[in-house]
Amino acid sequence: MDNLYITIGRQFGSGGRETGKKVAEALGIPYYDKELLVVAAKESGLSHQFLTEYDEKPNNSFLYSLVMGQSSLVGGHHGPTVEQMAAKAQREAVLAVAKKGSCVIVGRCADYILRDEPGLVRVFISADHDARIQRICHRDGVTEKEAEEKIKKMDKARAAHYSFQTDKKWADVESYDLCINSSRKGIDAAVKMILDFAKS
Amino acid sequence: MDNLYITIGRQFGSGGRETGKKVAEALGIPYYDKELLVVAAKESGLSHQFLTEYDEKPNNSFLYSLVMGQSSLVGGHHGPTVEQMAAKAQREAVLAVAKKGSCVIVGRCADYILRDEPGLVRVFISADHDARIQRICHRDGVTEKEAEEKIKKMDKARAAHYSFQTDKKWADVESYDLCINSSRKGIDAAVKMILDFAKS
Repeated sequence: MDNLYITIGRQFGSGGRETGKKVAEALGIPYYDKELLVVAAKESGLSHQFLTEYDEKPNNSFLYSLVMGQSSLVGGHHGPTVEQMAAKAQREAVLAVAKKGSCVIVGRCADYILRDEPGLVRVFISADHDARIQRICHRDGVTEKEAEEKIKKMDKARAAHYSFQTDKKWADVESYDLCINSSRKGIDAAVKMILDFAKS
Repeated sequence: MDNLYITIGRQFGSGGRETGKKVAEALGIPYYDKELLVVAAKESGLSHQFLTEYDEKPNNSFLYSLVMGQSSLVGGHHGPTVEQMAAKAQREAVLAVAKKGSCVIVGRCADYILRDEPGLVRVFISADHDARIQRICHRDGVTEKEAEEKIKKMDKARAAHYSFQTDKKWADVESYDLCINSSRKGIDAAVKMILDFAKS
């Protein structure tokens, strides 16, 4: 039987991480989120701190590579940018954990990296705006205004990173098999739907 | 108990109509798709032919109204355009059928028109590109090339119509509660997920 790879894209503050953890627990398979950075550091020899800095966000080197037309991971005229090095390390980490067997991976363009795997289920978790604000305030101990700014910044960064590293659009239904608004029926209902979809 | 309104947005050729029909049958509630045009004609006094012509597609009058800045349904400086008249008639038809009780409505921006209803479930059905081509060839008796052109034309028209008539983006996960790729697990699995979501 094919390995089962459940990848979870998510709006910032939508509960995607909690959903992914519960899906992995229910299936008894590993869950990777920030854990991937540890694997990436080990595999690539790059520091954990360096990889954290470039995790799912574009930055100045990203803009520079756009201007210079260095759109490939193997580098352009001036060799790979630091962002390309970080993305390559993450890509190899996703492939390394997938090689071990079935798993749940949150973010890191894993849906794209594992696109040829027959056992891939591409999930995206969203939530109503107010629910996201509440979740972030509660989780990060910030004000509603700060949560609002975090949402804008993080979603924008994820969208830019995703469209740069893949040929697809982030949060576009065409990029996923199943998208669930977690605030309508709750995280546990979303988990159940993902399990049903994966098993059907 | 609140009325249940299941609205179904769909990519052209994704099986959204079949999905909607099966959901309505399972719940024993009415299903509206092209049927809405009959209601719209009856309620508005506009001809069925006229409403069919303007059904879910922008056209020259749409472009004209954009240029003239007539973005409201109540009309701009020169009175409502024909597209605005058609959209208003459809909007009133959606409200009229919703008033009668629970139902399934495919397309026609019903998710936006009924956005304040607590019993609203906003679904979007997508499918893999090849599956859509096959469905359209089989259904409409056209070549693959013709199906390809139809997909491009219809999705573009629906996206333009949707973003003009609402303040949301068509096929963006943020606009829906549940989005399912029907070609991954089949129409019946999608129907089951929608029923589970609605009942949970």
